[in-house]
Amino acid sequence: MKGEKGEKLRVAVLGASGYTGADAVRLLARHPRVELVLLSAHSHAGQALAEIFPHLGGLNLPHPQRVEEVAESAWDEVDAVFSCLPHGVGQDVLARLAGRSKRARLIDLSADFRLHDVGVYARWYGRAHAAPELQREAVYGLSEVNGAAIAGASLVACPGCYPTAVLLGLLPLVASGSIVADDIVIDAKSGVSGAGRGVKESLMFAEVAEGMQPYAVAAHRHMPEIEQELSRTAGREVVVSFTPHLIPINRGELTCSYARLAAGVTAAEARARLWEAYAGAEFVQCLEEGAIPSTRHVRGSNFCRIALFEDRIPGRVIVVAALDNLVKGSSGQAIQNMNLMFGFDEREGLDALPLCP
Amino acid sequence: MKGEKGEKLRVAVLGASGYTGADAVRLLARHPRVELVLLSAHSHAGQALAEIFPHLGGLNLPHPQRVEEVAESAWDEVDAVFSCLPHGVGQDVLARLAGRSKRARLIDLSADFRLHDVGVYARWYGRAHAAPELQREAVYGLSEVNGAAIAGASLVACPGCYPTAVLLGLLPLVASGSIVADDIVIDAKSGVSGAGRGVKESLMFAEVAEGMQPYAVAAHRHMPEIEQELSRTAGREVVVSFTPHLIPINRGELTCSYARLAAGVTAAEARARLWEAYAGAEFVQCLEEGAIPSTRHVRGSNFCRIALFEDRIPGRVIVVAALDNLVKGSSGQAIQNMNLMFGFDEREGLDALPLCP
Amino acid sequence: MKGEKGEKLRVAVLGASGYTGADAVRLLARHPRVELVLLSAHSHAGQALAEIFPHLGGLNLPHPQRVEEVAESAWDEVDAVFSCLPHGVGQDVLARLAGRSKRARLIDLSADFRLHDVGVYARWYGRAHAAPELQREAVYGLSEVNGAAIAGASLVACPGCYPTAVLLGLLPLVASGSIVADDIVIDAKSGVSGAGRGVKESLMFAEVAEGMQPYAVAAHRHMPEIEQELSRTAGREVVVSFTPHLIPINRGELTCSYARLAAGVTAAEARARLWEAYAGAEFVQCLEEGAIPSTRHVRGSNFCRIALFEDRIPGRVIVVAALDNLVKGSSGQAIQNMNLMFGFDEREGLDALPLCP
Amino acid sequence: MKGEKGEKLRVAVLGASGYTGADAVRLLARHPRVELVLLSAHSHAGQALAEIFPHLGGLNLPHPQRVEEVAESAWDEVDAVFSCLPHGVGQDVLARLAGRSKRARLIDLSADFRLHDVGVYARWYGRAHAAPELQREAVYGLSEVNGAAIAGASLVACPGCYPTAVLLGLLPLVASGSIVADDIVIDAKSGVSGAGRGVKESLMFAEVAEGMQPYAVAAHRHMPEIEQELSRTAGREVVVSFTPHLIPINRGELTCSYARLAAGVTAAEARARLWEAYAGAEFVQCLEEGAIPSTRHVRGSNFCRIALFEDRIPGRVIVVAALDNLVKGSSGQAIQNMNLMFGFDEREGLDALPLCP
Repeated sequence: MKGEKGEKLRVAVLGASGYTGADAVRLLARHPRVELVLLSAHSHAGQALAEIFPHLGGLNLPHPQRVEEVAESAWDEVDAVFSCLPHGVGQDVLARLAGRSKRARLIDLSADFRLHDVGVYARWYGRAHAAPELQREAVYGLSEVNGAAIAGASLVACPGCYPTAVLLGLLPLVASGSIVADDIVIDAKSGVSGAGRGVKESLMFAEVAEGMQPYAVAAHRHMPEIEQELSRTAGREVVVSFTPHLIPINRGELTCSYARLAAGVTAAEARARLWEAYAGAEFVQCLEEGAIPSTRHVRGSNFCRIALFEDRIPGRVIVVAALDNLVKGSSGQAIQNMNLMFGFDEREGLDALPLCP
Repeated sequence: MKGEKGEKLRVAVLGASGYTGADAVRLLARHPRVELVLLSAHSHAGQALAEIFPHLGGLNLPHPQRVEEVAESAWDEVDAVFSCLPHGVGQDVLARLAGRSKRARLIDLSADFRLHDVGVYARWYGRAHAAPELQREAVYGLSEVNGAAIAGASLVACPGCYPTAVLLGLLPLVASGSIVADDIVIDAKSGVSGAGRGVKESLMFAEVAEGMQPYAVAAHRHMPEIEQELSRTAGREVVVSFTPHLIPINRGELTCSYARLAAGVTAAEARARLWEAYAGAEFVQCLEEGAIPSTRHVRGSNFCRIALFEDRIPGRVIVVAALDNLVKGSSGQAIQNMNLMFGFDEREGLDALPLCP
Repeated sequence: MKGEKGEKLRVAVLGASGYTGADAVRLLARHPRVELVLLSAHSHAGQALAEIFPHLGGLNLPHPQRVEEVAESAWDEVDAVFSCLPHGVGQDVLARLAGRSKRARLIDLSADFRLHDVGVYARWYGRAHAAPELQREAVYGLSEVNGAAIAGASLVACPGCYPTAVLLGLLPLVASGSIVADDIVIDAKSGVSGAGRGVKESLMFAEVAEGMQPYAVAAHRHMPEIEQELSRTAGREVVVSFTPHLIPINRGELTCSYARLAAGVTAAEARARLWEAYAGAEFVQCLEEGAIPSTRHVRGSNFCRIALFEDRIPGRVIVVAALDNLVKGSSGQAIQNMNLMFGFDEREGLDALPLCP
Repeated sequence: MKGEKGEKLRVAVLGASGYTGADAVRLLARHPRVELVLLSAHSHAGQALAEIFPHLGGLNLPHPQRVEEVAESAWDEVDAVFSCLPHGVGQDVLARLAGRSKRARLIDLSADFRLHDVGVYARWYGRAHAAPELQREAVYGLSEVNGAAIAGASLVACPGCYPTAVLLGLLPLVASGSIVADDIVIDAKSGVSGAGRGVKESLMFAEVAEGMQPYAVAAHRHMPEIEQELSRTAGREVVVSFTPHLIPINRGELTCSYARLAAGVTAAEARARLWEAYAGAEFVQCLEEGAIPSTRHVRGSNFCRIALFEDRIPGRVIVVAALDNLVKGSSGQAIQNMNLMFGFDEREGLDALPLCP
């Protein structure tokens, strides 16, 4: 029904036993232009995907293998690779895939290729970058902002979930000179799936439910990524204040960015710049004055909802963005990037409406 | 892309400001064979749907009107009507629509036309049935069981959420003589959206979260519906024990039916009858021995997952079913019925995979 | 064991059918120096307290009456009144009680007497203050800061839940000149019980669970209260940025205050000022460097946990405070104030440890 | 105020780093007749209790040690031992303590000494009982039922959380011949803390929240315990149907027991037997006809709320019980037993009212 099998893109998902990988599979399995031909998993390798994730049962997908055990010839059949491997691990794998003569286009969902400066990478991730040359090819995959570069990229480094929400709200304001880039305070809140599926005491239900707290205060690894993009846009080095919180929900991310307007700019003018920036965007919804972004209104979808409020302190504004950390904050944006890379309609495979309640 | 506009089914959703209505709109708006041409809402009439349900923003849908204010000519343009009106209210509206010379096919999601015996209706709903003649036309819309009758129906009465889960698990066992129909104890658990969007103290977050309790013990209105279908299948009058519970989740329903095997039947044989009954079913997933249904594995999807366990008391079995009360338990099954009624592929508009976590 | 009955303080709780009132009753019913002699409720008057709040069953407490129906002589028997009435309503009642010849000491948990400037009250609460003279008597009941004044007060206006958390963290820093008072950004998060027990669609379980969002952005009524106390301490008018969020938990409040250090002050020095300020405090726990406040660690208790973090932007600090909005943020602090007013040990009736998980 | 130090009971809590141990400490630390003199922890040994459980900070308690490293002389100072060690582990430790010449009275919260028949223990727990002689001393610690035997016991085996709820509801009905013991179906639901603090993927927040499912269907280890006590009371061997569910709340347990009335007994008569059985009980609350037990109404308290409903199937009743699995279902009942063993008022240390919401 959805096009001849021969026309479909042959796609691999590496790291399919994590939440990000599972959501990539969930969406790609229903993408009309995609055939899933290869899955990898580490801790659960050898199990059928339906055992690892019963909600993905009945799909007739290939069995996940360990990535190191994939036959070399199998890679020849792959047009695009989504890597949902943990940072560090994916770097080595992708470098190897990039070095093959028959090369698939690479879409990395980890932090491995987001930071252009490998020194910054080493400082924040505690290990030397394993593929500095491949790093130079990487295009930062913020779909709405870098669409043209993404379309031509061989390797797309998909942004972190927090940077996606923060940057979609702030970049048009910095680019248009509407806000001062040097005095930005970001208070971010995330649901628990953002922390991944690794088993930790601190992520147990009884350690999280009916509670909330900040974590990694002034020390979160998404900061250098936010600063890199703000700095590039501002044309000078920018440092931000960034405090994430763990909130007892499964999916959803909310960021409040507190900023100063540039001299002579009003909040209404700044809001107009946001609307203009996303005038044709399918997935970024700029809200009317007074409307409030909620994670409930994006759950399970690729939408990001953004609002700008005038603060009571004169000259300050509050930019609020909400998205689903596993979709627009991760797998959904990665698929949006694939659509851009292969000339598909940006909405293909991503048209599910939010699940609410 | 999805067929010429002229070919699409023109659909109305009445009661679009409730959770059931909203989920019908959410799914129908992406159904490739459907055009939403008319929406009604009562308490929120006059507001755009995007104001009532921000997650449905940006869809370019008709403004909800009060159902009594819809122009008579507008009904001529409608091929199918989904009524998500509260019971009692919908009865009058549907009777009027059924009496029009140009008549749409009717899909009722309320309890109004589920009970064949209007006396039973009056007893459980506290008012005389307002459309006893139309009642005679109604086909009980349990898709997997009544598919043929549904295909030809002018009015489909979609089952309640609890009856859907309970009956999908039990009817094949009763029909095959695998269990004794007269000694069935049902313990059911539902998320909060099953109670609708009416504002009540007992449904406030702080009255529900971090707690659980039964409600309507031995007095829930889904009992006569369960009994009607079990009785019809058993060929004699059946009374069940049914106790529902309110659980602090948004979506999801789980039913445990405790039953006695018929003499000489084993649990494995009973399980085989279930598998046979749903051999070709798209949306009913019978689990392997030992696998456990969870609402997490069906959330947002039209799937129902069923498992049968041998009990420790010899001769007893436990049938567990899980579904999303707003999808397979309500709007999804209604759309599945529409697909059957209009000869579409049963999966059209319902192929989203479960959202997990 | 707990003192002769004759020695006990005779206490009234007005507005006992709300969450604040219920938590006051919960704690006062076990206070060794208190006898509850009078309860009022509005919407649920006539019901036994055990019907309104089954968790308070079996206590042998007086039946709640409507406050306007309390016999005049009954007030003569009351030594202290906790008013948990909604703002506006309580003002009139307390003014009347203050005018009696035999006068109980008054502890108001609403916003009615918190703002010294009745013009500010009128602006934020949309009505003229009904008891401007009584307002002049009111002492702001932030126990750790105003203890001496509270001890002698005839009317204590207990702080709002947000102001309690914010001010406990900031006042010692402003008072000691450690931070700049004019550039404070506060991002606050609250559980749902903070919104009270009034029935609203926006507070329904299915409208709140598995989601989060800000509300009353730059428009919350706790702002003038925070500003009043910061201004008083700073000795000049201070305006703050304040954005509250609704989080899907029952109890708990978390505030992050982003501030600039005064010239020449280090984060460690600022932290030392906090520790000094609460050196003898029973209920304020200043955390070691790196430890993180969580609402889980204060639930059901009168504790407030505070930490100060050095930010990455040089010269900035982040002050995080966590408390239970119904205890230290409301009823618990009110009882702490009663203890101060009547010369009891500050911990009497408040020694329950946090309930975790 | 709480008695001379010399009079206090010197208490040890073994396994203080689990949820059960933490709740025992939380309650014992405020018990007026108790001094905590020894704590043990395994995985977190060496850390201060305030690091393991920040909500227990500031208590000036002894540092937890590994139980095998406790000095022999330290045991001489202990009057009572609460063992919250995992089953299997505690058996060895308690056997050693029981063999000392100076012997403390032992209160075991694990399953190790609940089953009188060590063969049944071996079958359900997969290992031979390590202390069969000590087992013979053990008194089953269902406080309201076995009070006299508990008072004189040297070793009390506290019931599991499910058995406590189920047996409090059923034993008086079986003892009075009101129900038939051989046809009991139990559907039980528990919050997540009941599964302990061991780190498992299946207990991660994102694997539990917004979902529900049964587990250990017809295979849960609390079954033989329920059957032992029902059989003893019925005077013949009883087998039950028991299906537990995992519900996304922290604390709380709810059991529905479906049973047949004995010939000639009415539901009202059965209810009267329940009321009589708990006429003087401090912690068991039998509800009026129609009132519904909720875990919300017992959270954090030692109460168990029980209601009996007449079913629609003639001759059947539904017995519903709600308790806090960590208090009445574990540590609270253990302390109640200690109070009975040492002749204290049963309510000492247990008078906190439920925390609601």
